[in-house]
Amino acid sequence: MGESFGLYQMGNDQAIMPYITQANVACGFHASDPNHMKSTVNLAKQYDVKVGAHFSLPDLPGFGRREMKIDREEMANIITYQIGALNAFLELATVKLNHLKPHGALYGMAAKEEQTAHAIADVAEHFNVPVFGLAGTLHEEIYTQRGIEFQSEFFADLEYDNQGNLIITRTHDAVVPDETAKRCVRAVKDGLVRSIEGSDIAVQAQTICVHSDTPNAVDVAKAVKQALQQAFR
Amino acid sequence: MGESFGLYQMGNDQAIMPYITQANVACGFHASDPNHMKSTVNLAKQYDVKVGAHFSLPDLPGFGRREMKIDREEMANIITYQIGALNAFLELATVKLNHLKPHGALYGMAAKEEQTAHAIADVAEHFNVPVFGLAGTLHEEIYTQRGIEFQSEFFADLEYDNQGNLIITRTHDAVVPDETAKRCVRAVKDGLVRSIEGSDIAVQAQTICVHSDTPNAVDVAKAVKQALQQAFR
Amino acid sequence: MGESFGLYQMGNDQAIMPYITQANVACGFHASDPNHMKSTVNLAKQYDVKVGAHFSLPDLPGFGRREMKIDREEMANIITYQIGALNAFLELATVKLNHLKPHGALYGMAAKEEQTAHAIADVAEHFNVPVFGLAGTLHEEIYTQRGIEFQSEFFADLEYDNQGNLIITRTHDAVVPDETAKRCVRAVKDGLVRSIEGSDIAVQAQTICVHSDTPNAVDVAKAVKQALQQAFR
Amino acid sequence: MGESFGLYQMGNDQAIMPYITQANVACGFHASDPNHMKSTVNLAKQYDVKVGAHFSLPDLPGFGRREMKIDREEMANIITYQIGALNAFLELATVKLNHLKPHGALYGMAAKEEQTAHAIADVAEHFNVPVFGLAGTLHEEIYTQRGIEFQSEFFADLEYDNQGNLIITRTHDAVVPDETAKRCVRAVKDGLVRSIEGSDIAVQAQTICVHSDTPNAVDVAKAVKQALQQAFR
Repeated sequence: MGESFGLYQMGNDQAIMPYITQANVACGFHASDPNHMKSTVNLAKQYDVKVGAHFSLPDLPGFGRREMKIDREEMANIITYQIGALNAFLELATVKLNHLKPHGALYGMAAKEEQTAHAIADVAEHFNVPVFGLAGTLHEEIYTQRGIEFQSEFFADLEYDNQGNLIITRTHDAVVPDETAKRCVRAVKDGLVRSIEGSDIAVQAQTICVHSDTPNAVDVAKAVKQALQQAFR
Repeated sequence: MGESFGLYQMGNDQAIMPYITQANVACGFHASDPNHMKSTVNLAKQYDVKVGAHFSLPDLPGFGRREMKIDREEMANIITYQIGALNAFLELATVKLNHLKPHGALYGMAAKEEQTAHAIADVAEHFNVPVFGLAGTLHEEIYTQRGIEFQSEFFADLEYDNQGNLIITRTHDAVVPDETAKRCVRAVKDGLVRSIEGSDIAVQAQTICVHSDTPNAVDVAKAVKQALQQAFR
Repeated sequence: MGESFGLYQMGNDQAIMPYITQANVACGFHASDPNHMKSTVNLAKQYDVKVGAHFSLPDLPGFGRREMKIDREEMANIITYQIGALNAFLELATVKLNHLKPHGALYGMAAKEEQTAHAIADVAEHFNVPVFGLAGTLHEEIYTQRGIEFQSEFFADLEYDNQGNLIITRTHDAVVPDETAKRCVRAVKDGLVRSIEGSDIAVQAQTICVHSDTPNAVDVAKAVKQALQQAFR
Repeated sequence: MGESFGLYQMGNDQAIMPYITQANVACGFHASDPNHMKSTVNLAKQYDVKVGAHFSLPDLPGFGRREMKIDREEMANIITYQIGALNAFLELATVKLNHLKPHGALYGMAAKEEQTAHAIADVAEHFNVPVFGLAGTLHEEIYTQRGIEFQSEFFADLEYDNQGNLIITRTHDAVVPDETAKRCVRAVKDGLVRSIEGSDIAVQAQTICVHSDTPNAVDVAKAVKQALQQAFR
């Protein structure tokens, strides 16, 4: 959320807020700017949605979706900077930072590169909030190993391969809301998802992620919320 | 301080630290980056130097020394973002934010434009620390009016005109350390400085600023410190 | 045109191209990026639309719509850089640079500040193409004085004040296509437009500008083109 | 060369120019800005030094020395943009573009990744000048295969490993001028260099590169020039 930049709009945060409980708010390195960060924090507060820092590689033209080689210490500093910036807007709104979630290519890198997962952990230790990540990857392994609370997330609108890897694309296609909602219920209930190759693979889903830049994100969020409420009422 | 950027060096922070009591640390918008912010905060802590946020217009190529027209609300958000980013490094180092000080063109704008001084005040209210500025300008008037603590600063290495305006240049020339030191003692003791036009004008000097990018900044800082210690022992 | 940036979309260039004869293509300083510049040049070529360089202040977060104080020589260099970058894509597409047009705040500054108009002229001399600008302002005066071809443009979708100044806003509202089209025909035929204060003022219109980021830009461009074709068949 | 940025200085171009015949001029993506590009082109012209475009990954904070994953078409566009920008300053100075040379991490990537070497070749085809690169790598293979003139360069101040790979570091250490000069003469005469592991390996050296940001670059350039003149008089 909060991924608009200057005059450029991205996603429809206003319409999505009613259907979510937690927002990952961009911090200005892949998207957003001080104006949009402030208004997004206020919008989340208005809908009683919790706010996490959605920090990124420093890559505005690439929307944080191009891998960059950055060493552990520099990466930790880049992350610290972004969390601090968001935190200032949270403090102004008297909202507490709820969690951390790396964005885009950084998310993918942390799943497979030790030094990147450690860089995130180096920072997370100080802020004392859970980190969202992919179960069964270095996210889970390294955060947990270091005593940092890990929350597994399931991606409503992205594909998985047979190894359980998320297929992170630069742009996101629309998905069918109903099917996506069923897929989420199955992931939560049964811990299974159909991979892009057509096999059932194990997944964990303590939290479910819907991308706000998926073209029909509002419908997806709405369908997922309703299906979960019905399944777990 | 902390105005290096990537491989680019600016100033000799290590050498200046022993001669100062408070550092204005850049926040990444006119200079610095997450690495340099972290190391500068740590360096200041090591020398027991207090740290203020030295926020700026968003203008890295211009080193924050080119005026930009930005409205009050956007300016306040830009400032909030930078303070938050620095604050994260301060928190990691368990150092408290000591003060706020606008940089370069933003400093000059706040001295003469109401909306800019108010934007700074809008943010300062939340952080509850003093703001450094130029006495007799909108810095003093507006911050004080709004109940924000104001600290007048005297610039060791910049010229003043007959109206008491600071002459803010894009690059700084070396100054003679001994003369500069005497000028500072006079400003503190007598509240007077010789203007660039040759008249004595009234100044206030609760704190003294030495620019770290003045070519002989280390010698200047050392001379000023010694002269003040001698004058006020 | 070409004002999309990374994943961020701005305007609907594809839909507008059929209704225009000349495109002002952004050069990466207020909008666009190398990918969008290339595809926009190719799109223009496909529709046989001539391409001008739409250079700007270096201000991506502000979309080039915030004034910045930059001296003449630096401004000329900033402009040269952008024209050169666009020119490379034009050369690859074997398209010739057709004209120059400053964007946003730079356009407004050149209308009223001598040094800015001169900076543009300093560069235009080398490229030997006309510069688009506002008649009756320093655009016309300084370019013409220096022997640079000037083409007056009329803004279909912006308001003028009684002094003939264009009211440059950060975002553009939708306008009524039919009324706008009539306004353009009148500007071309009679050299008159109704100002925002309600008086008829003199304007010149060798070329007509429709902003691609005006919400209903496609309808506006279409209506203006048809009305002009009908009026001047 | 031309790697200063705003107020930040990098290298001493003025002092190095007398000792070189070709300059790789930064294009604003890892270093430089329009002011420094212009003055560097003029300085090169004054010393009759030929100018090549030293384009880079878009990474100013990392000085272009951090790898980024960018696909072939986008990379080609990024390169085109930079060459065009430099070309505008060359045209203003009536100097012809002499060659192309990728910078930093992009140089290393092109040596080992096909798509990156092809992206460079895609652009080089249009500009019809030689590309500098490392012999025995994809630089040589792909450029040559595609009919683009390749010039092998030998790095005076960097280490090679036993496989002939260049060891590209983020900062460069000073080297001993005399030893470096002898190493260059040997590379040119005998096609050999001692690797960091202590073996003699084959190298090619149609041109020799001295980094302007190596601390004692001026002395190195001077020593290399004199040694080569003596050896090949």
